[in-house]
This record gives sequence, C-alpha cells and structure tokens, in this order.
Amino acid sequence: MLFEALKAECPQEWEGYVTHPFVRQLAAGRLPESCFRHYLKQDYVFLLHYARAYALAVVKSDAVEDLKQSAALVDLLLNTEVPLHLKFSARWGLSESELAATPEADANRLYTRYVLDRGMSGDLLDLLVALAPCALGYAEIGRRLMADPDTRLEGNPYREWLELYAGTEFQEGAAVAATQLDRVAARRGIEGEVTRSGRWPDLVATFRTATRLEIGFWEMGLNP
Amino acid sequence: MLFEALKAECPQEWEGYVTHPFVRQLAAGRLPESCFRHYLKQDYVFLLHYARAYALAVVKSDAVEDLKQSAALVDLLLNTEVPLHLKFSARWGLSESELAATPEADANRLYTRYVLDRGMSGDLLDLLVALAPCALGYAEIGRRLMADPDTRLEGNPYREWLELYAGTEFQEGAAVAATQLDRVAARRGIEGEVTRSGRWPDLVATFRTATRLEIGFWEMGLNP
Amino acid sequence: MLFEALKAECPQEWEGYVTHPFVRQLAAGRLPESCFRHYLKQDYVFLLHYARAYALAVVKSDAVEDLKQSAALVDLLLNTEVPLHLKFSARWGLSESELAATPEADANRLYTRYVLDRGMSGDLLDLLVALAPCALGYAEIGRRLMADPDTRLEGNPYREWLELYAGTEFQEGAAVAATQLDRVAARRGIEGEVTRSGRWPDLVATFRTATRLEIGFWEMGLNP
Amino acid sequence: MLFEALKAECPQEWEGYVTHPFVRQLAAGRLPESCFRHYLKQDYVFLLHYARAYALAVVKSDAVEDLKQSAALVDLLLNTEVPLHLKFSARWGLSESELAATPEADANRLYTRYVLDRGMSGDLLDLLVALAPCALGYAEIGRRLMADPDTRLEGNPYREWLELYAGTEFQEGAAVAATQLDRVAARRGIEGEVTRSGRWPDLVATFRTATRLEIGFWEMGLNP
Repeated sequence: MLFEALKAECPQEWEGYVTHPFVRQLAAGRLPESCFRHYLKQDYVFLLHYARAYALAVVKSDAVEDLKQSAALVDLLLNTEVPLHLKFSARWGLSESELAATPEADANRLYTRYVLDRGMSGDLLDLLVALAPCALGYAEIGRRLMADPDTRLEGNPYREWLELYAGTEFQEGAAVAATQLDRVAARRGIEGEVTRSGRWPDLVATFRTATRLEIGFWEMGLNP
Repeated sequence: MLFEALKAECPQEWEGYVTHPFVRQLAAGRLPESCFRHYLKQDYVFLLHYARAYALAVVKSDAVEDLKQSAALVDLLLNTEVPLHLKFSARWGLSESELAATPEADANRLYTRYVLDRGMSGDLLDLLVALAPCALGYAEIGRRLMADPDTRLEGNPYREWLELYAGTEFQEGAAVAATQLDRVAARRGIEGEVTRSGRWPDLVATFRTATRLEIGFWEMGLNP
Repeated sequence: MLFEALKAECPQEWEGYVTHPFVRQLAAGRLPESCFRHYLKQDYVFLLHYARAYALAVVKSDAVEDLKQSAALVDLLLNTEVPLHLKFSARWGLSESELAATPEADANRLYTRYVLDRGMSGDLLDLLVALAPCALGYAEIGRRLMADPDTRLEGNPYREWLELYAGTEFQEGAAVAATQLDRVAARRGIEGEVTRSGRWPDLVATFRTATRLEIGFWEMGLNP
Repeated sequence: MLFEALKAECPQEWEGYVTHPFVRQLAAGRLPESCFRHYLKQDYVFLLHYARAYALAVVKSDAVEDLKQSAALVDLLLNTEVPLHLKFSARWGLSESELAATPEADANRLYTRYVLDRGMSGDLLDLLVALAPCALGYAEIGRRLMADPDTRLEGNPYREWLELYAGTEFQEGAAVAATQLDRVAARRGIEGEVTRSGRWPDLVATFRTATRLEIGFWEMGLNP
C-alpha cells in the first residue's frame, strides 16, 4: 500500500503530525476555545482551496473511475462540507461573513498552494500524494484519538469534531482515497517494490513536505 | 447580457452552429442512424473532457458561488450525465465498452483541448466564454428546434434527445450559466458597454473560434 | 532509448509521418509553391504555441538541468527562430503582418493544444513524449530526405528548408532532446524494460496520437 | 501607471517591504554574515521557482511581444542569473552542492507557490501583478538604498549586491517590466481609471499579499 510505504519513509514527521499537541489537546477537551475558533475560520478558507486541488485532480484524470471519484469529492466538499462547516461554526458564534472575511494565514496558504503546484508541475499521482496527508491523515488522527486513553468524549466541547473524523463515513472516504492512490500509482508506473522506482525520492519528498506543512497548520491553530 | 453581445459579433458562425444540418435532420427525424450512433460515441468521449474543462473552472474560481456552481456541474456531468448517456446509448445498441473504446475524432478533440487551453492561458472568463457555445448553445438549439415547423416529434427516433435539450431542466441550467457569465464578467472588469473593453476583441475571438469548432463537431456527426 | 521504443510501437504512423508526400514533394522540389506558402504561414503560428508548450516544460521541471535546457529552447524558438522565420518568409513574399494575420488552421491548432493538454494533465514526461514527434521527428525527416535518391538539392526552391533540418545544429538539438527524454523518463520511473511499465500504454497512446496529428499537419500543408 | 496605482493602495505594506531592516542593514554593511549566507542559499532556490513563474507567463501570453519578452527573461534567469549566483555565492564560501541541497524555507516556498497559483487561477495580468513586488520592487529597493544616507559602499561586504540592483541594467529591466504591466493591463481590459475596474479589488489583493510575502522573505533572511 503506497500510503503505508510513504509514512514509513518519514516516521518522525508523520508522528509529529498525527499526534500534534493541537489534536491531543482537542481530544482531551483542553484546547483553548480561541484556538478552536481560529482553526474553524482558517479551516473554512482551507476547504475552498482544498476543493480546488481536487478539481485539479479531475482535470488531470483520464480513467473514468478517477474522474467520477474526484468529481464527487469536489462537489461534496463545496456543496455539503462547506454548508456543514458554516452551520457548525455558527454554533461557535462564527457567522458566515466572519468566516468569509478571514485573512488566510500563511501556514494555511502555504499547504494548499504547495499542493496545487505539485499538481500543476507533476501528474495525478504527485497531486494525490501531496493531498494524502490531509485526505488520509485526518482519518488516522480520528481513529488514533479515539483509541487514546487521554481522549475524553463526555463533556468535551470538541466531541463533534472527534466523532466526525473517527466516524464510519469519514473512515470509508479515506479508504477509498487510499485505494485510488494505489490504483493511480499502478497506472503511473509505480507498483510492486515502490521504493525502487526512479520516482520514489520525489514522491517521498512531496509527502514529507506536505506532512511538514500540515504540522504547520496545527501550529497555526495553537497560535491564533 | 454578455452572451447576447458575443453572438451579435459573429451572427454567421452562430447561425451556422445552431441551425446546422445535423440538428435539423435530427429534429426532422431524417438523420441517418449511423450518424446518430457515431455522434453518441463521440459525445461520450466529449462529456469526459467537457467535465475536465468545468473542473478547471473550479480550479480558477475564487468566489464561493462560482466554486459551488461549477463543482455541482462537474459532478452532474460525470456522475449523472455519463450514466444517463450510457443507458441511452445502450438503447441504441452501444455498450459501455464500445463507447469507452471509441477513438476520439479530431473535431471532437479539437474543441475540448481548445477550451482547456483557453482556460489555462486565460482566466475564468476566457474559459467560460470558450465553454459558452456548448453550455448555452445546446439550450438555444433545443428551443429553436422545438419552434421549427420542420421538427417532428411523433415517430421521431431522436425525440428523447430533442426533449432533453428543449426541456425545462436543461433550459434552466443554461440560464444559470448565462447569469454566471455576466457575474464573472463584472468581476473580471467587463461590464456596462462590454464591446468597449480592451478585452473584447480577445473574448470575441475565443467565442467565434469555439463556435466554429462546435460546427466542426456537427460536421463530424454527419460524416461517420 | 525511449524514443526508439515509442517509434517501434507505432511503425505505421511513424512512417506515414516521416515519409509523408508533403516532405517528399518538398525534397524533390515538386511541392506547389502555394502549399509551401500556406505551410510557412501556419508554421509561424505553430512556432508560437510550440514555444508555449516548451515554456510549460519549464514550469513542470524540477531538475536544474531540465529547467535550463527548456528555458534556452523557449528563448531560441521565440527570439531566434521566429525572427529567422520572418526573414525566410519575407523571401517568399510573405510579410510579418500577413503571417500574424493568418487564421490558425484546425490541424495546426489541434496538435499544439493536444500537446499543451497532455502537459497540463500529465507530467513532464507526458509532455516531452507529446512533443517528441516534432522535437525529434523533424531531425529524422531531414536526415532521411538527405539520404533519399529522389531528393534534389540543385535548383530545389526548398533547399534551405532541407538543409536546415538535415543540418548539424538541428541534428544536435534533436540529440539533446532525445537525451533529455531518457533522463526524464528515468526520473519519472520509466527505465530498463520501458514497455513493462504501467505507464507504457499511456505514453504510447500519447506518442501515437501526436504522430497522427503531425500527419494531419502535413496534410493541411498539401491542402491550402 | 498600474504599478504606481497598486503601490498607492497598500503604502504601509510597500514601505515595510522596500525599507525592511534586512535591506537597510545590508546597505549599511551591518547585516550579520550568517543572515546573508542564509539569504544566498534561499535565493538560489527562489530563482528556480521564480523562473518557473515567468515560464508560466510565456504559457499564458498571446501577444508576440509578451511571448518574446518573458522567454528572454526565463532564459536570462536560468542560464545567466543562476550561474552568476553560483559564482557570487562561491565567493561567500557556498558551493553549488550546498546551494542545491538547501531545504526551501517556508517563507520562500510560500511566495513562489502563491505567485504560481495566481498565474494558474487568473490570467497573465494576475500573474504579472503577483510578480511585480519582486520584478519591480528590487529595482526600487536598489534605487532607494543608493539614495539613503545610512548606506555605505566603502568597505561594505554587500556592495556588489547593492550595485547589482541599483545598476542601470537592472533598472532598465524593471522599466521594461513596468511597461509590460501597463500593456497587458490595457489588453486585459484595465486602463484609464484603473481603480474603477471590477477587477481592481482582486488585483490589489494580489499585489498586497505578494508584497506581504516578500516581507516574509526578508524576515526569513534575518532569521537563519
């Protein structure tokens, strides 16, 4: 599985990302509310550019299966996730106009523009690998937090967030994304002993950088 | 309305496109079946690249409204229109594998790659203008054919095609696309007396070329 | 060598391209002048878009060597070849304004936009493979025509054209392009038994289509 | 002049950029050498992506003049500036392999990927406006530092840097870029009272963000 092979190449960055203080504090219900609100605002901006990146995946797909899958995801992100995010944020006292007026933080902009550039300079596989820390990482974070003894659901103001990413629907979405990654890799010439491919160093560099930039996103969350 | 202003600049090409023998023969029920089957096969390939072009519109959008609208359209094209096209084609004796194996005709490839390049070299407005002959023209064709005395519904083997493009749903979709065109034009600095903008010659050239290439698509339909 | 492996997959298309009546008539000095003038006009438009495609190769490069090589080529095409083309065309009675006013022929537009789209949807290797029939094929055409008993230099009005493409400088440029193709292929995971890579079918399809479109370009030359 | 109108919209950011402590310390000869070496290493990486952004300008140009101008610049950056940068850096004890191994700093990556994305999502004008703080700002910085009483040439280890950007060649290059900006603006529908165009808010937002990201680049220089 390509995703596992990529993680195995940068275990330190990966652990730093999926066990970041931001998500651990959130799971323990100890994250300052100001941090969470800051995160919600940035996440709104993030969603829009993340959807643009998946739209680029549609542009770069040739297999009908990939076209359909990414198209459904782009629509889900913009026409389901964005409205849900607005509703959820409203319960945290954040209006749509406040979210829309959020100046994009540097750490936020950096990740999505890096992903978009990987997509533009590379092929569909480079793009999906750059997206993987987000597309697949959030599901792992949700799963691991649920198994973490420090995690507290009862009375945790962020419980809904946790249950979203640990939930079946999100886990299944991530499984579909992982399958796509392997399918596209095979089609783009990476299969079998992936680490021996001439592309491997570049793919690892993309994955490592994207993971590092995700850590930067959590850091930003802790520093409103 | 930008669309009307564009058509007014190339009335000959526009009439040649929307009153092309291919659609008139189809409406009169006189189009050879081999032509229609050829068209169905090419239209399948066309749909995939047309969806890619709208995905590029998502990549190039910044307004949330544009992101949502184009995302819904990309999903509609790939996850609703493509399956419908397969079902419809099956009734004409064309299997999915036959459609998938269709070699893309030059006239087909030319239009979508031209549109994609206009999108890549220009901005969202250039892209939408290149898409307009298809996005808005089919609705006009449907409407005009329905009002044409030569059109015959009773016993016409292509009746379903006619009713699709003349139907309310399709007409409304085109109206939404026309509104988006004006909205994006305003945002991209083209409003009021559009023909006096420094961009006008380029926009007209794009629209004229795209219309010409649509004529080429109908020509291809007549020559399997 | 990737180029040889690609040609071996579509020998019929390749022969059809490099031994096309257009170039054989040209080499024999029997090509109607109207065809050659038509070709010169279209070739001017072609050069501009061909340079855009190599600029896309710069956008898509990461290795410094590739960045430099493609950058030099883009500059050569636009700031050396274009002025030379104007000078040469002037001797055939074609002014710069006439060349600039040339409506791009469909067969011309089709090839460059196809190449640009392969570059946008794929990676640097897909782009270079789509460019190969032109970047490498012209040198082969020049070489083969020089060895062809039907070729006539003495009194041939197109002698300069022949000597350009058969000339050392052009041959060396093609050799550099072939080397780059292999270098990029290795970096993008295609080396050793290239035909066994999961990417091979796509690369062959791109090369075959691009070659077919080049034949279309010669056809266009014969039909002003 | 578009450039002046853009600066007038964000005077605070612009002053913060062109009079940043990094360049003032450099001009006064008081910049720590470790900062300058750090800057040199990052600037090497920057040059490569900056050249990619100008290559995207070639991809997005249609006027022959724009194609030629940007092509010459891409070649200059990669085949003249990069070798000069290597030579210059060698005198500061930095080898080519050290420069090539430099991990790209976040602030560095952020600016170029933002510019590339503006180019991809917008048109040539959006791209040139995103490039303007660099393409035009360095010349202004050079000019202003030369006129600054705190600037010291004698014995200043960074004298060569100052003289490069204040020098005639560089000033002329910036003047050419400013002229192109106005030419492209007119062609893209922005002329006369530019601030009344529907595009103006977006152009200003792009310029302001790009300027802010340039400040981030100087900040990075101060914090190796």
